[in-house]
Amino acid sequence: MPFVKDLEVRMMAVRKVSEVPKQNVTEEGASGVTVQWLIAEETGAENFAMRKFTLKRGGYTPLHTHDWEHEVYVLSGKGVVTIGDKDFILEEEKVAYVSPNVFHQFKNIGNEDFIFLCIIPLKK
Amino acid sequence: MPFVKDLEVRMMAVRKVSEVPKQNVTEEGASGVTVQWLIAEETGAENFAMRKFTLKRGGYTPLHTHDWEHEVYVLSGKGVVTIGDKDFILEEEKVAYVSPNVFHQFKNIGNEDFIFLCIIPLKK
Repeated sequence: MPFVKDLEVRMMAVRKVSEVPKQNVTEEGASGVTVQWLIAEETGAENFAMRKFTLKRGGYTPLHTHDWEHEVYVLSGKGVVTIGDKDFILEEEKVAYVSPNVFHQFKNIGNEDFIFLCIIPLKK
Repeated sequence: MPFVKDLEVRMMAVRKVSEVPKQNVTEEGASGVTVQWLIAEETGAENFAMRKFTLKRGGYTPLHTHDWEHEVYVLSGKGVVTIGDKDFILEEEKVAYVSPNVFHQFKNIGNEDFIFLCIIPLKK
């Protein structure tokens, strides 16, 4: 199956999350945030990318807006997401949908790391 | 912000996973599988949908193929995914990418529920 072989060149079809490098998020307005691109364009994704975010205690992402959506699954910790003019508590076993073009921000409000998956579309 | 109001009608921006109904997967070739559509077209998704699958002990999805990809994040339990002619062990903290048009199947090979997220593109 040549397609599978080609896939293997681009990425292991299955990866350990712990082996994906953590990158510091250096965007202005971010603090204490790292991101792992678990499934990205370079590693085979065609339509959307899966990232894992870790916000240290007190950490937060920028309050910003952009023309693509977020689909978020909380893995652990406790945070708050601001979407437009509302705040929502996020903790394990919650999902969040952030529409395009709405100001939003994620903050860690707990004592542990606040960790979530965030999937975004890949613009072609 | 009317857009946020409209979003609230379609879905709570933040949902508890436990409140999303579990549907039995009745597709031929599936056994012991339920799915929760955490973020779906009806509830606001624009480009991709987030589903949570639970395979009971001994459960499996059909060995099948289709022209869209899967991006998978394993939450708990132990399984195996067949992709083309290869098998890969799946357990907590692993991700899998299944390309379009490749035969694939997920099986629970552990003693607990095998639970994973599976994100798919929404065809327009």
